[in-house]
Amino acid sequence: MSSVYGEKIKVSLFGQSHSEAIGGTIDGLPSGIKIDLEQLQNFLQRRAARGAISTQRQEPDVPEFLSGLKDGVTCGAPICAIIRNTNVRKGDYNNLLNVPRPSHADYAVRCKFGENADFSGGGHLSGRLTAALCIAGGICIQYLESLGITVGAHIYSIAGIKDTPFNEVDITSEDLQKITAKAFPLINDTIEETIKARIMEAKADGDSVGGIIEFAAVGLAAGIGSPHFGGLENRISAAVFGVPAVKGIEFGNGFACAELTGWENNDAFYYDENLNVRTKTNNSGGINGGMSNGMPLIGRVAIKPTPSIAKQQDSVNLSTMENVQLIINGRHDPCVVHRAVPCIEAAVAIAITDAIQSDHRNDSNRLRSILI
Amino acid sequence: MSSVYGEKIKVSLFGQSHSEAIGGTIDGLPSGIKIDLEQLQNFLQRRAARGAISTQRQEPDVPEFLSGLKDGVTCGAPICAIIRNTNVRKGDYNNLLNVPRPSHADYAVRCKFGENADFSGGGHLSGRLTAALCIAGGICIQYLESLGITVGAHIYSIAGIKDTPFNEVDITSEDLQKITAKAFPLINDTIEETIKARIMEAKADGDSVGGIIEFAAVGLAAGIGSPHFGGLENRISAAVFGVPAVKGIEFGNGFACAELTGWENNDAFYYDENLNVRTKTNNSGGINGGMSNGMPLIGRVAIKPTPSIAKQQDSVNLSTMENVQLIINGRHDPCVVHRAVPCIEAAVAIAITDAIQSDHRNDSNRLRSILI
Amino acid sequence: MSSVYGEKIKVSLFGQSHSEAIGGTIDGLPSGIKIDLEQLQNFLQRRAARGAISTQRQEPDVPEFLSGLKDGVTCGAPICAIIRNTNVRKGDYNNLLNVPRPSHADYAVRCKFGENADFSGGGHLSGRLTAALCIAGGICIQYLESLGITVGAHIYSIAGIKDTPFNEVDITSEDLQKITAKAFPLINDTIEETIKARIMEAKADGDSVGGIIEFAAVGLAAGIGSPHFGGLENRISAAVFGVPAVKGIEFGNGFACAELTGWENNDAFYYDENLNVRTKTNNSGGINGGMSNGMPLIGRVAIKPTPSIAKQQDSVNLSTMENVQLIINGRHDPCVVHRAVPCIEAAVAIAITDAIQSDHRNDSNRLRSILI
Amino acid sequence: MSSVYGEKIKVSLFGQSHSEAIGGTIDGLPSGIKIDLEQLQNFLQRRAARGAISTQRQEPDVPEFLSGLKDGVTCGAPICAIIRNTNVRKGDYNNLLNVPRPSHADYAVRCKFGENADFSGGGHLSGRLTAALCIAGGICIQYLESLGITVGAHIYSIAGIKDTPFNEVDITSEDLQKITAKAFPLINDTIEETIKARIMEAKADGDSVGGIIEFAAVGLAAGIGSPHFGGLENRISAAVFGVPAVKGIEFGNGFACAELTGWENNDAFYYDENLNVRTKTNNSGGINGGMSNGMPLIGRVAIKPTPSIAKQQDSVNLSTMENVQLIINGRHDPCVVHRAVPCIEAAVAIAITDAIQSDHRNDSNRLRSILI
Repeated sequence: MSSVYGEKIKVSLFGQSHSEAIGGTIDGLPSGIKIDLEQLQNFLQRRAARGAISTQRQEPDVPEFLSGLKDGVTCGAPICAIIRNTNVRKGDYNNLLNVPRPSHADYAVRCKFGENADFSGGGHLSGRLTAALCIAGGICIQYLESLGITVGAHIYSIAGIKDTPFNEVDITSEDLQKITAKAFPLINDTIEETIKARIMEAKADGDSVGGIIEFAAVGLAAGIGSPHFGGLENRISAAVFGVPAVKGIEFGNGFACAELTGWENNDAFYYDENLNVRTKTNNSGGINGGMSNGMPLIGRVAIKPTPSIAKQQDSVNLSTMENVQLIINGRHDPCVVHRAVPCIEAAVAIAITDAIQSDHRNDSNRLRSILI
Repeated sequence: MSSVYGEKIKVSLFGQSHSEAIGGTIDGLPSGIKIDLEQLQNFLQRRAARGAISTQRQEPDVPEFLSGLKDGVTCGAPICAIIRNTNVRKGDYNNLLNVPRPSHADYAVRCKFGENADFSGGGHLSGRLTAALCIAGGICIQYLESLGITVGAHIYSIAGIKDTPFNEVDITSEDLQKITAKAFPLINDTIEETIKARIMEAKADGDSVGGIIEFAAVGLAAGIGSPHFGGLENRISAAVFGVPAVKGIEFGNGFACAELTGWENNDAFYYDENLNVRTKTNNSGGINGGMSNGMPLIGRVAIKPTPSIAKQQDSVNLSTMENVQLIINGRHDPCVVHRAVPCIEAAVAIAITDAIQSDHRNDSNRLRSILI
Repeated sequence: MSSVYGEKIKVSLFGQSHSEAIGGTIDGLPSGIKIDLEQLQNFLQRRAARGAISTQRQEPDVPEFLSGLKDGVTCGAPICAIIRNTNVRKGDYNNLLNVPRPSHADYAVRCKFGENADFSGGGHLSGRLTAALCIAGGICIQYLESLGITVGAHIYSIAGIKDTPFNEVDITSEDLQKITAKAFPLINDTIEETIKARIMEAKADGDSVGGIIEFAAVGLAAGIGSPHFGGLENRISAAVFGVPAVKGIEFGNGFACAELTGWENNDAFYYDENLNVRTKTNNSGGINGGMSNGMPLIGRVAIKPTPSIAKQQDSVNLSTMENVQLIINGRHDPCVVHRAVPCIEAAVAIAITDAIQSDHRNDSNRLRSILI
Repeated sequence: MSSVYGEKIKVSLFGQSHSEAIGGTIDGLPSGIKIDLEQLQNFLQRRAARGAISTQRQEPDVPEFLSGLKDGVTCGAPICAIIRNTNVRKGDYNNLLNVPRPSHADYAVRCKFGENADFSGGGHLSGRLTAALCIAGGICIQYLESLGITVGAHIYSIAGIKDTPFNEVDITSEDLQKITAKAFPLINDTIEETIKARIMEAKADGDSVGGIIEFAAVGLAAGIGSPHFGGLENRISAAVFGVPAVKGIEFGNGFACAELTGWENNDAFYYDENLNVRTKTNNSGGINGGMSNGMPLIGRVAIKPTPSIAKQQDSVNLSTMENVQLIINGRHDPCVVHRAVPCIEAAVAIAITDAIQSDHRNDSNRLRSILI
């Protein structure tokens, strides 16, 4: 297994950068979920390349649904959707065959799969595969919405320039929808130009920048998830590290908790005016013991600067066994953080969907035969 | 599934804080692995409670092997080992039944499992279960050692007081063994007393402190792991979040990469004098595209301050539906970071073992019938 | 993975014939299931050895529950129960180390696990492991009963002597309970002595006999199971072949359908007087397309004659590489069919429990946060 | 999960009878397997409809590979292949929406998936999905061939007319290849006309016939598979019941063993002249304790008469809640046994591939880092 995720649902990704198509299958979603294809397309558009701060590769990224929908509604059969690879330029990457790109997977792929691996454009490890992830995730987002659960994310920082963080206790579904509707998802829009200027500066320098993405899910009932290995943190991280360039994940206040005392860090419970159980702070990020506690689920993900840079770099030639210099041609993003935002939403939504579907069944009426 | 981990091996944990026993089963390990029980006991001892800076609960934690070994060697059958719970004081926790402890799993457990859940001492979510994890992990550590792979970890920081980090490119198996042999695993022993004093200060204050643990694995061949969801980061994080109190994980330079440029962050390849492929830096933590690249696998884990503190805290009474004050009696650790070090080693070793056993088979001689 | 079963629940078996204990873990059962330990003991007793027609090995088979129950009710944590191996006679099997018993697993075990395998008494493949299966299955049977679903089985034939088959369309929960309460579970008790005499005849001859077991589940709602690989037949057969000596399984009329025409074989639907949908015949055994159709789920399993016979047999000495003669000492059953009946019930109940828990969740009220 | 199979490899099927396409993904196959597309096409052709004894639906069934191959060789990325549904006639099945066809999955599908299910042409449960299974299986067959393992099957009987069975101890790879090259795979070709006449007779009568398929795999090393739930019988049956119309499976002599004694049934070991370990008989079908013993793996599968018959049948109208008469229009096979032969080969090959890839890794040289 490599590209299959899930305990109860199975999300299976396939495709290489320059194969006929990329795509994904979701097995195990309930029937009766109405899929708004326009909303899905908007979601995919957020991931797609565009503008000066992104790669020039322009592909439409319109998924073709091969199965699983009937009149736009899930019918219970596995959903498969594909996107054709139309804008293929294989020659760009020929020199990578023997000279692995620093901090790319080329070398590890060769060690694992040998000479027969498809290195072209990153092969199966291409960032392009995130389009397939976003199809699956975009569907899960709509499924969760039908349950009253909203998933969203924003740029927490790029190159150290920080957005306003989520309000950890009061964030609402509406807040998330407002942010994710933006072309450049920031809470504090006044920093957008500063960030873009920094990205363009890196681009001009043949370089790239990284950043941090903050994600949230609101509306999730308490008690979803499981102790130990079936926990929400385990499931979400297992999905999120499937997004290329992710190098870290934290929940709630995350690494910052390491410098707090228990008294400072604990989230005190209280009844609000509607007799809902809430916590005064949300350092736990809505998760205790791997299970949701009813508060907003919040976390952050570190995205490394894209390793495909235009500067000349040191590498090795695996054929001649010599140290060499490498210049990577082709189309590159000076920053993928903004494009990774919907990818993180997708991964989080897939993980939460799986956790929900993996929950115990206790609706015994459904299970008992109606035969009298 | 909640307490079962693994794709090819299956590590299954069971037990509650005050049930008859806790334990674990490992299914899928190869036969022929010699298990050094004394070494395993030393490993478990590192996790066990002791001294002023830890809880007073003193249980021997000597595992009884029920199956899977023959003359101290794995026979290929599932290995099950248990530890009896001898020092049980159920009464300590009676007041927690209706008043959930802040930042503990009590409330989430009740929402998931209802009134029939076992809340006593944290039930199945007790830190005590990490003894079962350490049995499984201690065995995997010995298995990996038999392959030439060493796993180790140290206290990276407690309450903000920082140890020297691992040398990311040059760390050796011997380095790891030297650190993990210490009672208080620091690279820079001169800070030990400062840290312990800070822990005792928190204890005197009825409070607790958190920290960060750094882990490493050396000797792993390049090409282990898988793209996307089967990656080493996915597998390791899915295991590590099974350790209570973990709130974040990062690989290589982790969150710090978000403020670097690609030029600064990329790990240039080179041939060393023995014609091994290495990288000059190791910001990737030994992992590219989910697969090992032959360099040391390195990461860090955030451990929150233990939420069981002696100070009076705000909470709710779920029976009377009132806001109340809570004082937690019983035995508590003012810091669990040092005790969590072997737990993280265990989780990492289990994940790497699973990744290794999940690798493709390509030794076709083994698979072909010898019938002529 | 070898001894772990299940998609949503995980049943994990461990132990060898002569290890400290055998046992099993069930992960993923809902909380709140009351376990009647006396009923479970009666169930285990049906599998245990007794009387002239069975082996002389007499072990009490009283499970010790290590975890997962609180006051006799499942608490949602994994349930682990063990049975100590008290009556161990390792010497009996020493000659099997190099001389594999015909139609036993000795040779295959050696090829898979090598010299370090535990061959003593069949090791992990001993029929004794079915006691662990029956603990897990007995718990699932009680869970299913709480949903109104009854699982049962009977001796369909031994050595060709046939019992009356289940009434495929009208069998009730009461019918099943009546049969499974019998010491020798036959529908037609008048053949009991004939069968037992045939078994004693085989025993006197140093030989053994096989038979067929018929199983049923009634009360299962229509629509449980899944198309293709998640079907009830797939799940049940994957569990049932975990019972040693099973060499075939069929559902409904099974192999007999191969000689019928579609017109003869099709089960016509009709509304009964209560407007329940039923079928006039039940050649499908209650399963269409892998899913239950509301009719009784019925099937049969072939049990081979136990291969441990007292007669001298041809075999090989793997050490000297010579053809040799083998006489198997020790305690053997001349027939295991009657003892396998509860094992088949256990396997079927585990599979149905897993299918039920793997069903889609659609109770959205449970999943939506109650926060206003 | 419903349409995903496998522990180490994941075969995921998708598509409905009248969706845009059907297809399948195989994740986890090693890189470097050369896929002979012409051989695969020949394999698919065996399953495809043709001639008087089959349905008139004529679709080319030429798979389009979307991913996973590079220059016709597996590159280690998931392989996805699809077949477009071109010959769609949705109207044929409209009357089935409320009137379930006897012994079809229509009713169970409605109970599971509700009104949103896709009933058209059997939806996801259509026999057409076996084309996707055969793509995956055909690839696994070629993979196994590269290891020296051959999988094949033949018509064991149709409507009670029996072919010569496989020679259980002496069957060779060449024997299997000779049989599977036939248009109508019989060992004894002299019965072909008798069988076809019987099928045409059923067709003329608006009826259908069933049969039995015998499968074999030769060249498999001893020791593949696992005890208990990971056994070859468990894995193969879990795959084979994914083929529609299968109602039973047996290994070796199967149900016949129930009437033999142990002495008659046991397979005595011996050394042949090349000092290979063999058995004199093969009642075990090459499997002991779930693991291969080096002898040919042999079993049989019962295929029910196709339930789509032209005769008027009793059924119910789920909308009006009345008992009604049903006449099924559309295109039907009077017999699917011959077309199911490659499907069974496919399922068996997938299961064996998964068992092989799930075997323990013990080639430690591959796993140890080469860094000095």
